[in-house]
Amino acid sequence: MYIYIALDINISQKKIINEKFLGHKVFFNSNLEFEKKPETNFLKSEIIFGNVPVDWIKKSKKIKWIQLESTGFGEYLVILKAQSSKKILFTNLKGFFKDPVAHSMIAGILCFYRGIETFIKLKEQKKWIGDPLRNKLETLNGKKIIFFGHGLINQELKNYLMPYKCRFDYIDSKTNTKKIDLLLKQADIIACCAPETKDTINFFNSKKLNLLKKNALLINAGRGSLIDENALVKLLKNKRIKGAVLDVSKTEPLKKTSALWSCPNLILTQHTGGGSIDEISKKISFFEKNFKRFINNKTPYGKVNSLKGY
Amino acid sequence: MYIYIALDINISQKKIINEKFLGHKVFFNSNLEFEKKPETNFLKSEIIFGNVPVDWIKKSKKIKWIQLESTGFGEYLVILKAQSSKKILFTNLKGFFKDPVAHSMIAGILCFYRGIETFIKLKEQKKWIGDPLRNKLETLNGKKIIFFGHGLINQELKNYLMPYKCRFDYIDSKTNTKKIDLLLKQADIIACCAPETKDTINFFNSKKLNLLKKNALLINAGRGSLIDENALVKLLKNKRIKGAVLDVSKTEPLKKTSALWSCPNLILTQHTGGGSIDEISKKISFFEKNFKRFINNKTPYGKVNSLKGY
Repeated sequence: MYIYIALDINISQKKIINEKFLGHKVFFNSNLEFEKKPETNFLKSEIIFGNVPVDWIKKSKKIKWIQLESTGFGEYLVILKAQSSKKILFTNLKGFFKDPVAHSMIAGILCFYRGIETFIKLKEQKKWIGDPLRNKLETLNGKKIIFFGHGLINQELKNYLMPYKCRFDYIDSKTNTKKIDLLLKQADIIACCAPETKDTINFFNSKKLNLLKKNALLINAGRGSLIDENALVKLLKNKRIKGAVLDVSKTEPLKKTSALWSCPNLILTQHTGGGSIDEISKKISFFEKNFKRFINNKTPYGKVNSLKGY
Repeated sequence: MYIYIALDINISQKKIINEKFLGHKVFFNSNLEFEKKPETNFLKSEIIFGNVPVDWIKKSKKIKWIQLESTGFGEYLVILKAQSSKKILFTNLKGFFKDPVAHSMIAGILCFYRGIETFIKLKEQKKWIGDPLRNKLETLNGKKIIFFGHGLINQELKNYLMPYKCRFDYIDSKTNTKKIDLLLKQADIIACCAPETKDTINFFNSKKLNLLKKNALLINAGRGSLIDENALVKLLKNKRIKGAVLDVSKTEPLKKTSALWSCPNLILTQHTGGGSIDEISKKISFFEKNFKRFINNKTPYGKVNSLKGY
């Protein structure tokens, strides 16, 4: 098979791939700043691993299968919905990032509860405060967590929160308004990890955000579009809530002029939630496993559902 | 009974105490910077709640019971060991701080694994790096945790670490040297929460610290004296280990000149690990419960063991 790999990999990872796919022709893209015109090797390839531009895909007549290196595939819906007989199979990395993302979420939560940002900044100033800070700290014990979204990341986060004897409830875009309002008023932590759909865009609008308690913490590791950022900025600047942890924002990279940069009590993890030192090598292993299924006429794992859109 | 309370409490907490101990005479100390001479009210009191100076206790002829507001009671050993028939009962808050301390420990651990300090500092600079940071992050999955000490805080921390499928092992000052060396070489995280005894002082000396992996993280929420701080400073400055989280240090407050302030990859939580917003009110509740036992001739909870010294 002709395989085209568009992944940010290093030389030793290339070597590993070449060994694993011996007997096949593997092309690597020359750089991840994709040119407008597809690379010749891309146009020859039947299998693509990586998130290549939609326009490239449109120009290929060979592609049979695209293994995305993300969970999200919103930008490919235009192809998925247009193609008559699903001639290109798309698979994503659903579930692949749940551990690291949930780790980043709980890291952010615990930072707020245990004052870590304060301690980091005090250290820069070589300033000891100590005891007077003790009653500014909190424990997670018995806290009420409202999950927005029922997906694998929130499930993983719940696992990590279980030993703290937190109380849990769920909402989504289909939950009735009264229940949503009630739960948002009760929430100590809102853990938001839902996909972007027409019903989730701006779900956390100004009205909903203003229901939150003064002590509430808002975590978003889903899509930046789920939250009305201007409303959140206002809340944070007025210290109306305890804080927020955002792995995602509406614009990424965040512009220098974004008001988020100067919000107090905000941790921005810069869409690294899914990251880990072994991310690439695990992606390669996943692709290898899926490739074996593909060439053995088994459906690879993670076939995307273009109707659901996530 | 005459009760003397030396706690950093506010007016509403005083009111609560007065209501709870109706029918008894409750004195509050005038300020926590204890004078050399004991206050008159102190000398009248049979029950003390709080960590008053050793010299004050020596001068009292009335004290029957001292409820400390700490777990540690090292400074009172001189009295405990001298008094012939254990005429003063000492109780401490053993186990009281396990939740918040373990919370601070895991908060620090997750901060390192998920790069939170980096993100906090980038936000100050309004600087987006994003993707290139992903492979600097790690998950806790399967990490090897070596606990130094078998106490309640380490047990609590273990509970929180369970869902990450970490691997656990224990050492203490009695473990044989070969095993200690082996485990220190394997450790991803050393969670140190042991009391100070003659065998634990400087347990983590230069030799032992130098066994640690480049990727090791050292957490200390026990006593500052357990670690050779100069050796640790050297390790951190040379980036020989991933980092350290210290809730305790040899000198507290840390002096402006301490080399710890300028160590990279170090989080200093300024001995606030036991702190929480409800710390004082929970201490008052604990004392109230113990007081009821005391006046009903039941031994109050937390009687200290002066032979063990912790």
